[in-house]
Amino acid sequence: MTSIIRKIQSIVGRKHVATAPEDLLCYAYDATNRHHVPDAVVFPENTDQVAAILRVASEHRVFVVPRGAGTGMSGGALAVRGGLVMPMTRLNRIVSIDAQNLVAEVEPGVITGRFQETVEQQGLFYPPDPSSAAYCTIGGNVAECAGGPRAVKYGVTRDYVLGLEVVLPCGEIIKTGVRTAKGVVGYDLTRLIVGSEGTLGVITRIVLRLLPLPEAVGTLIAVFDDMSDAANVVSVVMRSGIIPRTVEYMDQAALQCVEQYLHAGLPVDAGAMLLLEADGSVQTVTVAVEHLADMCEKHGARKVVTGASEQESALWWDARNAISPALFRLGPDKINEDIVVPRNRIPEMVAWIDDLRKRTGLSMVTFGHAGDGNIHVNIMLDKRDKRVLAKAQQAVTLLFEKTVALGGTISGEHGVGLSKAPYLRMELGPVEIDVMKRIKEAFDPNGILNPGKIFPGA
Amino acid sequence: MTSIIRKIQSIVGRKHVATAPEDLLCYAYDATNRHHVPDAVVFPENTDQVAAILRVASEHRVFVVPRGAGTGMSGGALAVRGGLVMPMTRLNRIVSIDAQNLVAEVEPGVITGRFQETVEQQGLFYPPDPSSAAYCTIGGNVAECAGGPRAVKYGVTRDYVLGLEVVLPCGEIIKTGVRTAKGVVGYDLTRLIVGSEGTLGVITRIVLRLLPLPEAVGTLIAVFDDMSDAANVVSVVMRSGIIPRTVEYMDQAALQCVEQYLHAGLPVDAGAMLLLEADGSVQTVTVAVEHLADMCEKHGARKVVTGASEQESALWWDARNAISPALFRLGPDKINEDIVVPRNRIPEMVAWIDDLRKRTGLSMVTFGHAGDGNIHVNIMLDKRDKRVLAKAQQAVTLLFEKTVALGGTISGEHGVGLSKAPYLRMELGPVEIDVMKRIKEAFDPNGILNPGKIFPGA
Repeated sequence: MTSIIRKIQSIVGRKHVATAPEDLLCYAYDATNRHHVPDAVVFPENTDQVAAILRVASEHRVFVVPRGAGTGMSGGALAVRGGLVMPMTRLNRIVSIDAQNLVAEVEPGVITGRFQETVEQQGLFYPPDPSSAAYCTIGGNVAECAGGPRAVKYGVTRDYVLGLEVVLPCGEIIKTGVRTAKGVVGYDLTRLIVGSEGTLGVITRIVLRLLPLPEAVGTLIAVFDDMSDAANVVSVVMRSGIIPRTVEYMDQAALQCVEQYLHAGLPVDAGAMLLLEADGSVQTVTVAVEHLADMCEKHGARKVVTGASEQESALWWDARNAISPALFRLGPDKINEDIVVPRNRIPEMVAWIDDLRKRTGLSMVTFGHAGDGNIHVNIMLDKRDKRVLAKAQQAVTLLFEKTVALGGTISGEHGVGLSKAPYLRMELGPVEIDVMKRIKEAFDPNGILNPGKIFPGA
Repeated sequence: MTSIIRKIQSIVGRKHVATAPEDLLCYAYDATNRHHVPDAVVFPENTDQVAAILRVASEHRVFVVPRGAGTGMSGGALAVRGGLVMPMTRLNRIVSIDAQNLVAEVEPGVITGRFQETVEQQGLFYPPDPSSAAYCTIGGNVAECAGGPRAVKYGVTRDYVLGLEVVLPCGEIIKTGVRTAKGVVGYDLTRLIVGSEGTLGVITRIVLRLLPLPEAVGTLIAVFDDMSDAANVVSVVMRSGIIPRTVEYMDQAALQCVEQYLHAGLPVDAGAMLLLEADGSVQTVTVAVEHLADMCEKHGARKVVTGASEQESALWWDARNAISPALFRLGPDKINEDIVVPRNRIPEMVAWIDDLRKRTGLSMVTFGHAGDGNIHVNIMLDKRDKRVLAKAQQAVTLLFEKTVALGGTISGEHGVGLSKAPYLRMELGPVEIDVMKRIKEAFDPNGILNPGKIFPGA
């Protein structure tokens, strides 16, 4: 390893390779709270350095784990077999913003939130908004196909990636996709690489589609005594012809947790709360918000608040985005799921989850992008308590079985990575997995890139 | 071959295998006007039959060319190496329309236009609208990733495919994707197969995303003396914050051609005409149409017509959709291109094309989805005139060179197929092509599925 590290140092410079134990520890974790210490951390500055690193790694069969900001929820950034962790954070330039063609080009290390702010200053809009937008990188978003609240109207990261520059595991550089609104030349390598969780290639440049910034946004909250009513409203809303840009769901446990943390005045006695947004022209938004409020009231909301100031809306969103960190008040460890069911199955799903919570006595919190049927089920626990851990793992299996039985999927936006790999076979058949493995082999014959992810036992 | 055909007959029944020369001729052509006579035509009825046919074909290394309605523009449905043509037209059921979850499931042989009408009767909307919607099949649309006028706002076929059932060349059946709004489990086989032009697998079932039907649509035409002004308006419109659902461009030659054919009262002396649509709520549409009209007037339109009745709008669309067939008034053969450039390069591109037309004396007609920068350049000729044919082929090469130099792509929605394969290397590098070929091999190790397509010399 020493001689390999010397080669890597000669590519990026000594100071851009970390090997001290305290540095390695910093890159041993991600948002899953698991730890796997790499042999070294290398910080490339540009595509050519990435290519050179991968050539060395290929030659010596050293594992390479590309990494963004480490905010991933499924362990994609963890060096489970050691090797090199390669944060892409030095490739952090917004290369161009082309307002006329509604296209931007960025490096993978650009912080998503910073990019959003930058384009918004030019009257442009980049919709994908993972809750970690203030910290996460666009490269990580692309690798995991991140979603977020606005996906209900605007789709996920995949829907905004027009083209990529990617370094293949052997060090070859490819360009995929287009810089135009359309393009169908050859196989769709762009979308194949989006969501491939760093297992097929290292993304070094991203061409993104932008939209004009909507003129106005209206926000409302609807508070329900009964969480089933809140769940029911979702498909009523989605079927109504007005597509809100967010339909966020928070159950009582989520409300209570965040309230203790933020003291935002949330209705801690409610069964559930919905946070909805509509965007468009000023007129459209006014009409849409009234319409949404009306639907919530007609379907059992005990209280609907519209006409919030920008400040109040921001507070609601702070509360929403604080759920994930706030949950640690309930336990030092989190098992965090990301299921999706058809929208009209949400009532059945949340009732079932509530029943599971009661049956198991586990500390469970449910929230998420209800407009997409995407529910984050979190089990908070202390993993050192093996009895509780076993019960939690059993609950996860039951949850996934129920999800698949309802026609759903076990991951909507977090990816498979490490934490869902053991469950992959619950959703995919052996032939499907075999095709995917053949694709992996076509890209990465030596298997050096992000090993141990996606495929059970890989 | 006789014994193979007997095996195939035993799978689908004798009457569903055609071998008579007059039947073979009917399946020897597509919209490219090229002819390649297959050895037999087999009409499966269901997925199991498709799987059984592919197993026989694999065993005997017989080529199989899946086919929709044969409306493709790049030769994807042609049996260039003989073998079996397999129309999917008997798999033509709309399996389910789930209004609550905005999801439908269809077989590949469903006619796109029929599907649109069916969902619209339920207040739902399937946006992709290739101009051949009245005849083409959704399976063909998925295989080619078809676009259409509405792509400017709503995206292309890819953006509406949630999942697929696909028979692999060896006869194995896989299911890809999800039936939910989101899903990131494993590699994105769904989008890899969308646009793969029948070379990776045979699509037997399609899960489609639907939208609520917009309340209203407003149509307007803007007539320009100078085609450059028309081209200029496009990026002005797209940058304005109101995204129209169509921005169609027709040059003078296109207007004249259609007028002779339809006698619709088109402005045959104009340099170009734009056909625009906005959709949404009644109020939004009223505002949008005024805004679009205003922009056209400010940027050089000599005449703008708004407030058309549904009948008038339908006439404009009939005219637009008649361009492709009407062109044959100018010559018995068509070389039909499908380039895309960044929107703000459209003025430069159409001026360059006009200059090329003048320089070469070729009969050229330009129209297309200008809002996407997607321009259909058609050269009408008699291919028996070898001198003109050579000149036309040279013009195509120049056109593609210019397109790529402007940051564009040589195919926006028609695919590569047979007709663009010789030009693939103008857009893709050797490493990119090599990766695609390895993917092809991973799916189709025996190379039986739709040979001779996409890859030059394949």
